[in-house]
Amino acid sequence: MIKTVAIQGIKGSFHHIVSQQYFENEINVIECLTFDKAVESLMNKESDAVIMAIENSIAGSIIPNYALIDSYHLYIVGEHYLDVQHNLLTLSDQTIDDIEEVYSHPMALLQCKEFFKDYPSIKLVEDKDTAEVAQRIHINQLKGIGAIASKLAAELFELEILAPSIQTIAHNETRFVIVKRENHEIPEIEINKASFKFSLDHKRGSLATILNVMSDCKLNLTKIQSLPIIDTPWKYAFFVDVTFADYKDCIKAKSIMNIMAQDFKILGEYKNARI
Amino acid sequence: MIKTVAIQGIKGSFHHIVSQQYFENEINVIECLTFDKAVESLMNKESDAVIMAIENSIAGSIIPNYALIDSYHLYIVGEHYLDVQHNLLTLSDQTIDDIEEVYSHPMALLQCKEFFKDYPSIKLVEDKDTAEVAQRIHINQLKGIGAIASKLAAELFELEILAPSIQTIAHNETRFVIVKRENHEIPEIEINKASFKFSLDHKRGSLATILNVMSDCKLNLTKIQSLPIIDTPWKYAFFVDVTFADYKDCIKAKSIMNIMAQDFKILGEYKNARI
Repeated sequence: MIKTVAIQGIKGSFHHIVSQQYFENEINVIECLTFDKAVESLMNKESDAVIMAIENSIAGSIIPNYALIDSYHLYIVGEHYLDVQHNLLTLSDQTIDDIEEVYSHPMALLQCKEFFKDYPSIKLVEDKDTAEVAQRIHINQLKGIGAIASKLAAELFELEILAPSIQTIAHNETRFVIVKRENHEIPEIEINKASFKFSLDHKRGSLATILNVMSDCKLNLTKIQSLPIIDTPWKYAFFVDVTFADYKDCIKAKSIMNIMAQDFKILGEYKNARI
Repeated sequence: MIKTVAIQGIKGSFHHIVSQQYFENEINVIECLTFDKAVESLMNKESDAVIMAIENSIAGSIIPNYALIDSYHLYIVGEHYLDVQHNLLTLSDQTIDDIEEVYSHPMALLQCKEFFKDYPSIKLVEDKDTAEVAQRIHINQLKGIGAIASKLAAELFELEILAPSIQTIAHNETRFVIVKRENHEIPEIEINKASFKFSLDHKRGSLATILNVMSDCKLNLTKIQSLPIIDTPWKYAFFVDVTFADYKDCIKAKSIMNIMAQDFKILGEYKNARI
């Protein structure tokens, strides 16, 4: 039973919104300024789970978060998709011409860069967290400064939405995972998605062979990502996500992949959030 | 003939080092503070090519740069691997205990985060460019401030290397690509690597089928990355890199993939820099 989750960011951040949408019951939230700190709180048993952004359409996979899951031997026990809507937030008496600087998380700035092309005089500054900037503007009553953050952050920190949904892509989905120290949050019957990691030598056809196994076992590939293995030239690690109708098919595929691929590892088995 | 290249960052940056190592002849360098600006200079014909970091072992692919190549219909005409060594640079009369803040590019901070765990009082601040911070420390003679940047930046801006090679991974390789408006910088006989993009419906075995084609045509996969296609659920784009001994094999694979995959696109054909 998850009672306390660690999130990257403060209340009002997109990770906070995910915690509200994913969990049905009331949940305690531990605010962390980095993903590393969030994982630390999990390892120290201050939290029962971590919510982590893992991929989006613009930046692709967030590989450092895969590395955290891998190196701390954590498990993905659930996933959630959030349609991330970015808003330009300011104190209520401001117009766009008053704004000299806008602070936000690098990912938010990246996702909104088209909007700011029309306002070349506004300086964009990278910051730790979307909501934390909104909080700072509120506490210090900062004029001339904008935040890019959620509607929830506008409500929590009494800011005005000067421009809504300023991200370049209207339907801007980010995938989040819920991560724990142990595998299996849910009964086997409900499991229909899994994340694996394995490595292969750089030999012609080696990946095709593994994908044929997965296909033969009726697994659908929803994501694949290769990564060179550090200090091991010509060897690659692969991160794959698969969906399936019957968990028995997954068990069969795992037993074959365990023999055919190297360093086969289950990163998590959970419920597909996209049906 | 490439005479002028646009780089992200200023002189002393890692992109500048790549420009020195890749080109045999003397080359003019246009300093740009973002990849977008570098591509703009290429489109305006102010530069003949852009040098772009495209992947590294820690962060994986730099998807926004793939998106720039794709959306501006640019071509990869060459690649270069650089062993990125990060150094802590300060004015010459400083010790580590004097340093209160360290500024650098988010990627450099990420790659050095283990080093700074031993110095929790030092505040890490994200900045635009590694070398530009070194320049700023030099020009304003800033005490108590550190930069994470190259040895070349230390030389150019007369700073001391307070700690050398502070990145977590000793052998920290980044892959850079050289990008132009037109394909084929080199004769066909020298081409032994290619980058493709294609899309597939989410159908079981569809990727395995394409990989089998590539394998049958004697192409070796060196990189694969799936990306959900924006606003098109259940359809995926794939970025792949392949190497081959004979360009004729590549021509054959291309003609089959062009039929079997959707939206097949050649992102570049060039010489493998890793032999």
